[in-house]
Amino acid sequence: MKCKICKEKSLIRLRAHNISLCKDHFLSFVLDRVQKAIRTYQLFAVGERILVAISGGKDSLALFEILQRLGYPVEGLHVDMGIEGFSDQAIDTVAHFLTDRRAPFHLYSLLDVAGVGITRMASRLKRPPCTLCGMMRRYLMNRFAWEHGFSSLATGHNLDDEGATLLGNTTNWHVGYLAKQAPLLPASHPRLVKKVKPLVLLSEREVLAYSILRELPYQEERCPHARGATSVKNKIALNLIEYHSPGTKIRFYQEFQKNRTIFSQPEPTHHQSCSVCGFLTTREKCQFCTIVQRFHDLDSAPSDSLAM
Amino acid sequence: MKCKICKEKSLIRLRAHNISLCKDHFLSFVLDRVQKAIRTYQLFAVGERILVAISGGKDSLALFEILQRLGYPVEGLHVDMGIEGFSDQAIDTVAHFLTDRRAPFHLYSLLDVAGVGITRMASRLKRPPCTLCGMMRRYLMNRFAWEHGFSSLATGHNLDDEGATLLGNTTNWHVGYLAKQAPLLPASHPRLVKKVKPLVLLSEREVLAYSILRELPYQEERCPHARGATSVKNKIALNLIEYHSPGTKIRFYQEFQKNRTIFSQPEPTHHQSCSVCGFLTTREKCQFCTIVQRFHDLDSAPSDSLAM
Repeated sequence: MKCKICKEKSLIRLRAHNISLCKDHFLSFVLDRVQKAIRTYQLFAVGERILVAISGGKDSLALFEILQRLGYPVEGLHVDMGIEGFSDQAIDTVAHFLTDRRAPFHLYSLLDVAGVGITRMASRLKRPPCTLCGMMRRYLMNRFAWEHGFSSLATGHNLDDEGATLLGNTTNWHVGYLAKQAPLLPASHPRLVKKVKPLVLLSEREVLAYSILRELPYQEERCPHARGATSVKNKIALNLIEYHSPGTKIRFYQEFQKNRTIFSQPEPTHHQSCSVCGFLTTREKCQFCTIVQRFHDLDSAPSDSLAM
Repeated sequence: MKCKICKEKSLIRLRAHNISLCKDHFLSFVLDRVQKAIRTYQLFAVGERILVAISGGKDSLALFEILQRLGYPVEGLHVDMGIEGFSDQAIDTVAHFLTDRRAPFHLYSLLDVAGVGITRMASRLKRPPCTLCGMMRRYLMNRFAWEHGFSSLATGHNLDDEGATLLGNTTNWHVGYLAKQAPLLPASHPRLVKKVKPLVLLSEREVLAYSILRELPYQEERCPHARGATSVKNKIALNLIEYHSPGTKIRFYQEFQKNRTIFSQPEPTHHQSCSVCGFLTTREKCQFCTIVQRFHDLDSAPSDSLAM
């Protein structure tokens, strides 16, 4: 196969787009797809400071590298969730990556805020770690962005991530979630930042190929808690359809975005300040503080030490 | 496992419903599901004569058997499409089945109406036989039902069929098709019958088990043209999700029906009479007559006999 653009030997075949590309033109293609997402979905305002959430995986590293390469003013945030046997390496990965790129590195740690990491907390509360981790990570990202004056938080969700979520929301007809599943989620309150997903037009395979070609030093290891996540079955199902009908995944996502207003917007949320941390909540005490307090209550209860 | 109802030894496990049932209670379950679909989606009016389209496969035979058992006034229609090496056996199957059940049997043949069967027509016109067959079968069913005073045409589409179609319409966001994908499609003109699908709440596996237990003499052989139909990949994808999350398929369909009005109805179609057959069309000559005429033009052209 030859590169569609320069007719030199191609490196990668993109069946969804019915093209083959050489290394250089593939790298340009990736940048173009991100620019297209930014433009089509109006992700950023001019001159906006962008906080990029960097887990250390290929998607978040690629996102940062691409936005920086495109000239956007980006800073990196790693939220340390205190996952035993995993988080230390993630912090190292992100710290080295950002230092090498001379980019601002922010580290925000669950241990510092809550006095405990997610592994111990989930085990003590007998809760599935992924649900807990997702909720607490969102809280910490929002709080950090607000406290440091960012207006925009970018995450590395790619087309496979968003497609799988969309398929899950569709097979369950979660109309309220569908209404909100967009590459740009506007800030619904002055103390919240808008969330943007500039990689939504790139498949997992495309991001992976980009990361390898750019030799990005991402963390290959997976989180030990992330076994059998529910979104995996939807990814596989979607890839099965994609295999038989190349282009389905991107069409599924893009056509959905064109039609998304069909789904009515949920009622606006009434926000108030949490009585413990002062951050936004819909209740007297926010979910984050409620869970942290429940952990500490359990952890200090004398009956529990006997049961250990 | 024990039957959820009588606690005797169970015969079948229905993971989507989280129950196991013995033979008798499974057979009742199937009837209940059909009754539920008829009631929920108001498929039939009281005393209505129902024309059941019977291909000879398990679904259409089961549909007829169930509706008859439930006391509905049903008559059977087999549309003979003239598929070489397949249709003769299908006619035999349906004729014997309906004779045994002392039920009215109507046979309507493409060969009689058009002077040619689908295999020869598709080959001559160089068209994919399935697309052509579907269109022509719908025409013949509609025309027969209208000419014989039926108000309702029932087909054996099961949950897997409808789920796969729904997944296809969703991944492509065919909003117009979504608006119309219902277990009851009302007659949009006095010369059209309403279409109903009473098996929509039963999976393919459930209909198969019912057909086997009732020893229905269905045609096991598949149509020779039906290789690699596009709906198959969607069925497999949906079953993959179902395997990991039992109940997804039925929820996908039922929740969709609850939310279907989200999708706006397409513009009403302007109908007129076909200048050849007199049946409904949106053009001067209907699609059926256009294709039949094109076939005969090609077939009688002298240059073609040379090319043979």
